[in-house]
Amino acid sequence: MKNFLARLFGKKAAMSIDISIIGTGNMGRALAARTLAAGKNLQVLARDTEASATLAAELGGGTTGGNLTEAPAGRIVVLALPFDAAKEYVTAQGAALDSKIVIDITNPVDFSTFDSLTTAAGSSAAEEIAALTSATVVKAFNTTFAGPLTAGSAAGEPLDVFVAGEDSARTEVAAFATAAGMRPIEVGGLHHARELEGFQLLVMAMQANPALPDFNWGTALKIAG
Amino acid sequence: MKNFLARLFGKKAAMSIDISIIGTGNMGRALAARTLAAGKNLQVLARDTEASATLAAELGGGTTGGNLTEAPAGRIVVLALPFDAAKEYVTAQGAALDSKIVIDITNPVDFSTFDSLTTAAGSSAAEEIAALTSATVVKAFNTTFAGPLTAGSAAGEPLDVFVAGEDSARTEVAAFATAAGMRPIEVGGLHHARELEGFQLLVMAMQANPALPDFNWGTALKIAG
Repeated sequence: MKNFLARLFGKKAAMSIDISIIGTGNMGRALAARTLAAGKNLQVLARDTEASATLAAELGGGTTGGNLTEAPAGRIVVLALPFDAAKEYVTAQGAALDSKIVIDITNPVDFSTFDSLTTAAGSSAAEEIAALTSATVVKAFNTTFAGPLTAGSAAGEPLDVFVAGEDSARTEVAAFATAAGMRPIEVGGLHHARELEGFQLLVMAMQANPALPDFNWGTALKIAG
Repeated sequence: MKNFLARLFGKKAAMSIDISIIGTGNMGRALAARTLAAGKNLQVLARDTEASATLAAELGGGTTGGNLTEAPAGRIVVLALPFDAAKEYVTAQGAALDSKIVIDITNPVDFSTFDSLTTAAGSSAAEEIAALTSATVVKAFNTTFAGPLTAGSAAGEPLDVFVAGEDSARTEVAAFATAAGMRPIEVGGLHHARELEGFQLLVMAMQANPALPDFNWGTALKIAG
């Protein structure tokens, strides 16, 4: 059954997929909602083929599902995976990611303390992932929580999507964010993923802190004014 | 004349100063406005004694002025100075800062490129300053530009003031921000100055980028929603 679905949806996906989302968790679902809102053709790939098929059916809009071992069809591949799984994924895909844009949304937070990153000082998850793949890696959507991202807004304002990466790929991801109803903020080269991941550590720690009941994963990091 | 003013204002300041602001630039003036809004007694100290006396007179509310070589009278001393000058100041003051809270507002940005920090990876301006003084250093107000800070708000919302430092000093600075009409967000120990300074590099680069005309030093970094 799994192989059957994989082949079925894999075939459907062959022609015109714009974006492949890897992962069916909260962030994968939220980004899928934004992708469809942007009018893009979408493929969802996951370790559990049936889960991706079910999600694809729920999403509608011609969305296809498949297994994450398949070569992704989209020009843009969004890694809606935890950091370690994202590294494994790009390593396993190898040349299948050639000439693609890979969006890294991860936050390499030590979730046992919410007080430090798991990456070395002077590095970032995005740069570590980039070192493992021939794809052009762009950092984006690491400061947007799943709830607000599903809506595309928080407190009645379009979400700010901070984007770091090489110029042309970054511009392409920024255009996607705009098409999806959000405000891209291009912050420069991929090394600036360090600052995006660093600050999000603080923002996530706020949400996880029971002493701060106003911050419960529904907030958005914003440049106001 | 300079010595006369210094002695005059120094004497006036002796009894009940809550906060000493070092520096009469845009950030010093903005923080002075917030200090008076908080109902605190204020002293302004600067390299140019006459400039501090003039500013003190402009501010009113019993504000006194003086030279930055004087021992500051406030329980809280705000370094409204560039990073290098802030380091020089705490070094020169030495034991005069014992048992005080020093607020570091600096951003150690390479202003020739707006693309990197001048501090080493895994360090921060706040930690470097703390290493030079017996005072308890708290990082705050490095993400609030002078214009919005003068008003205490941006886009009709109270400013978010991110505060990093040792618990009791951080709480004291947070209480000051609250009294001054803003929203303190306590992000943990002083090592989190790294993330506050890192992200502000990106925010400052946006303001300085002529390709982004909507960002002109009037924005505010905010946790919305």
